[in-house]
Amino acid sequence: MTITITADQVRQLREQTGAGMMECKKALAETGRDFQKAIDVLRKAGIAKAEKRGERAASEGVVDSYIHPGNRVGVLIEVNCETDFVARTDEFKDLVRNLAMQAAAAGADYLRREEVPADRIAREREIYGAQLRTEGKPEPMIEKIVDGKINKFYSEVCLLDQPYIKDDKIKVQDLVTQAAAKTGENIQVRRFARYRLGQD
Amino acid sequence: MTITITADQVRQLREQTGAGMMECKKALAETGRDFQKAIDVLRKAGIAKAEKRGERAASEGVVDSYIHPGNRVGVLIEVNCETDFVARTDEFKDLVRNLAMQAAAAGADYLRREEVPADRIAREREIYGAQLRTEGKPEPMIEKIVDGKINKFYSEVCLLDQPYIKDDKIKVQDLVTQAAAKTGENIQVRRFARYRLGQD
Repeated sequence: MTITITADQVRQLREQTGAGMMECKKALAETGRDFQKAIDVLRKAGIAKAEKRGERAASEGVVDSYIHPGNRVGVLIEVNCETDFVARTDEFKDLVRNLAMQAAAAGADYLRREEVPADRIAREREIYGAQLRTEGKPEPMIEKIVDGKINKFYSEVCLLDQPYIKDDKIKVQDLVTQAAAKTGENIQVRRFARYRLGQD
Repeated sequence: MTITITADQVRQLREQTGAGMMECKKALAETGRDFQKAIDVLRKAGIAKAEKRGERAASEGVVDSYIHPGNRVGVLIEVNCETDFVARTDEFKDLVRNLAMQAAAAGADYLRREEVPADRIAREREIYGAQLRTEGKPEPMIEKIVDGKINKFYSEVCLLDQPYIKDDKIKVQDLVTQAAAKTGENIQVRRFARYRLGQD
């Protein structure tokens, strides 16, 4: 069985492991081009450096934080763009800072609605349904109202769905889209973490 | 069946939901003192405010961050102490800042060794064992050497196990212990997140 290994695959493995060209090629062939397994093969042979050193950045952008005065709430955020040139512009840095402040002030739990666990939505639906029944709303209306309430719930817990705190006529996603249009680059909020003192 | 509800439990539920005393007591009784379910009961009845507003801080301490110049690596950290008084001291703030810098510079993946997944350790053990066999080490020695290497691995990937970057004669945990002794309070690093641009 012959497995084709491209020069690009070999280069990537060399960058990650510091191993020689032929060794990388052999490791990729042995493992059917499974990158992670090839690294293990090289490490077992004592050729590759430890995994920790394999760290490499795949995209451009900025990692930044916002700590609310008083140090009880803080946010760490990563926003990606396509080039280092855009990442260094004040415009991009301002966008990242505004996004971090937004997450701190408005208290998002998730980045986008696809990330909200299904059981959390099911629980919210059940609660809203019971509330409406308690209020005596007719059954046929309930599902429609619940859908509306779930949309509102998304706009409270998902960062990109939230109304922008500095201009509530737009959503946070619109802010990102505007910046992408201005810079001409694909801009993505990759991840964020929000810590509130003493809270999970 | 009678369930005893303490005044303290009622107070806690009131703080979290904004509901009245009798309503809280009833909800706790109905749910066998299951706090989360009692909140749901109150919400279904339209009495409690939405869960998001239930946020409350359980401990004192500081949330802080350290962003490495160039904005490619950043750390968010929460460190807890017992009183707001200690949290406001320069000593405590310096500790938190040093811990954040440590995590950014030394690249920890976990807080303490108990958090490292068993399969990651199993994989490291397998790799180290294979390396030693490749080097021709006698089998009876291998397990002992592997144990030593695993300890070294912990001291690379666990923040509290790392040598302190500003004084490698002590571990990061010692730094925390020293601060606890000086302030006379229990000090715990609760959590941290480290983002490196383009990396998981």
